[in-house]
Amino acid sequence: MTSMILTLNAGSSSLKFAMFGGGDDQPVANGQVDRIGSDATIRLRGADGLPLSVTANNISTHAAALRVVLEALNGAFPRLQIGAVGHRVVHGGPDFAGDILIDATVLQKIAALSPFAPLHQPHNIAGIIAAGEAFPGTPQVACFDTAFHRQHPWVHDTFGLPRAYYDKGVRRYGFHGLSYDYIAGELARIAPRIHAGRVVVAHLGNGASICAMEGGRSITSTMGFSALDGLAMGTRPGQLDPGVMLYLMEQEGLGTAEISDLLYKQSGLLGLSGESNDMRVLEASTRPEAAEAIDYFVTRIVRETGALAASLGGIDALVFCGGIGENAAGIRDRVCARMGWMGIRLDRAANATHATVISAADAPTTVMVIPTNEELVIARATRRLCRMA
Amino acid sequence: MTSMILTLNAGSSSLKFAMFGGGDDQPVANGQVDRIGSDATIRLRGADGLPLSVTANNISTHAAALRVVLEALNGAFPRLQIGAVGHRVVHGGPDFAGDILIDATVLQKIAALSPFAPLHQPHNIAGIIAAGEAFPGTPQVACFDTAFHRQHPWVHDTFGLPRAYYDKGVRRYGFHGLSYDYIAGELARIAPRIHAGRVVVAHLGNGASICAMEGGRSITSTMGFSALDGLAMGTRPGQLDPGVMLYLMEQEGLGTAEISDLLYKQSGLLGLSGESNDMRVLEASTRPEAAEAIDYFVTRIVRETGALAASLGGIDALVFCGGIGENAAGIRDRVCARMGWMGIRLDRAANATHATVISAADAPTTVMVIPTNEELVIARATRRLCRMA
Repeated sequence: MTSMILTLNAGSSSLKFAMFGGGDDQPVANGQVDRIGSDATIRLRGADGLPLSVTANNISTHAAALRVVLEALNGAFPRLQIGAVGHRVVHGGPDFAGDILIDATVLQKIAALSPFAPLHQPHNIAGIIAAGEAFPGTPQVACFDTAFHRQHPWVHDTFGLPRAYYDKGVRRYGFHGLSYDYIAGELARIAPRIHAGRVVVAHLGNGASICAMEGGRSITSTMGFSALDGLAMGTRPGQLDPGVMLYLMEQEGLGTAEISDLLYKQSGLLGLSGESNDMRVLEASTRPEAAEAIDYFVTRIVRETGALAASLGGIDALVFCGGIGENAAGIRDRVCARMGWMGIRLDRAANATHATVISAADAPTTVMVIPTNEELVIARATRRLCRMA
Repeated sequence: MTSMILTLNAGSSSLKFAMFGGGDDQPVANGQVDRIGSDATIRLRGADGLPLSVTANNISTHAAALRVVLEALNGAFPRLQIGAVGHRVVHGGPDFAGDILIDATVLQKIAALSPFAPLHQPHNIAGIIAAGEAFPGTPQVACFDTAFHRQHPWVHDTFGLPRAYYDKGVRRYGFHGLSYDYIAGELARIAPRIHAGRVVVAHLGNGASICAMEGGRSITSTMGFSALDGLAMGTRPGQLDPGVMLYLMEQEGLGTAEISDLLYKQSGLLGLSGESNDMRVLEASTRPEAAEAIDYFVTRIVRETGALAASLGGIDALVFCGGIGENAAGIRDRVCARMGWMGIRLDRAANATHATVISAADAPTTVMVIPTNEELVIARATRRLCRMA
């Protein structure tokens, strides 16, 4: 068996992976471990989409999760050889503007960025360390979710704070960069004229953001310093008045841990619906609160699409991606129905079938659905930096 | 002399006033006391625009400031009789949707809203109490800066937080309501077709916000729960990622008082320029930081105008008001230059002279400059509620 590339995406209590052979764009296996540390569940599939056999118990750390994944892969692929490991790393700070081979110095720099993403960066680091122990001497690559946005003009990179905060790294980094990078590449391949223009890309999943691109480069994004800002998400609020934070501290007496928990885990669709963070559950619900939560989600997308179009001085195309963006035709319909003034009009049949182009043929602004693929972006970067295949 | 209406607008260390006679729209005197409590300055003018004679010393409270103002007014207007006093009150909470005569119950309710605006509401209350002492038995009226926005649809009134926070009053109130109310009235008077349409009004002063109006009613605004959100301002940051707040608390170890001071007094144009909160100073400066601060100010206006136009499903007119909006032709020019895609194109000569209509005759979207007049809105409400003239 040829040497494989393993991609890892370590969340707070999850570990996603995909394994790619040679120069292939299709993974030979992928899956994820959820609820590491409590009641873990595992879902692994081979290239044929069929489940791989897994025995799981006592998965209390990312290292243990990686061991379970590797056991399953070794069982399914005899003589398995991992030639390189690529990692999604949430925060690259002001300096990491591209993918990089991980050595001790790089790992140290990644760890030094943890204060910027205290709930996420430590888990990425745990994934890198676990992979280093599992594959001693095997090259590892870090792909940063912020890197695609590092060329933002200063006005879109700063907040309205005293300059010293910008200098120490309090900036509008933007996230979902691996996804936007993939979409930019796909646009260049299948729609080069759109790629060259002003494109607003909405990555709508359990996390959600919008990116304004010009000529395939990110100009600005709805996410800023953290993964909390911008759109409403599954459990995160999106845009929030800083005065509300002062109120929570002063008047409600909440500490940082409680506020973090409120904003990362109890807000967004879950908090507004009181029911679920899952758009499919809310769309199936008959409760008015579920409908209101969806309405808020849609309203914020409409508002921010206008904001990003204004930042670009107009809009040539709108692209949907991410779990909701790729699959929720009803959400796309409701968002676009309010955007006629921006030249947006859907072809309802095309939208219903999630076609690549879903705008009406004579609409001035093109609307597209492009399934994103963050794992492939990581695999390609790893292949390139490790000079494989 | 007929009975006069006195309007008061009490800030943290300032007291603005205007005095109106009979049914007149022109004040017979106006002015303000600044830096109450430290090195107070006073500026009072009569109807002829000439300064009134004032002797000031030891102005350490709002009550003392009001006494100084009244001494000057009594000196300039023999047999002065104040028939009613109208107050700007920053926060009306979820319940005050219009102007109201102040009695003990109302004052108690206004005081109960202080946690929503701890830096502002107490000074408004101090102004009401001082006026009550100066004019025993004289009717007083409260005009709320939030009232004009109280009809926001729920999706523009809530944040993406658990519903319990909405229920306890954590909402997108919006401010500058007296100014927007005045502009809506002027539009109805001088441009009824525009008033009936979709209008974005930018109130740009030392505080700044934008309001989206449909048929003269506020749909949404860039200011939310507090006066911090939205646009960059003289010393306030505008939109700020909640993750930055967590960072300031956790990583910088700042407490609420320090963060309040940072956000209310050290940020915005002042923080970004390191030079001044005054647009005139920055426009005259040759330092690159001053130019960058202006660029950030303009960029945020452009972005939020797009967002509000999207919330309205399009834009028929853009109106500038407030100190910067009415007087800074260069800022209006820079904002509008990026909005050609929204049908905006200025008539440069009209813009340079601050004409009422500053858009080109054939531009699809009308752009206007309308000097705002919050004092007159207060005086009219007071007159109406007190059945005067």
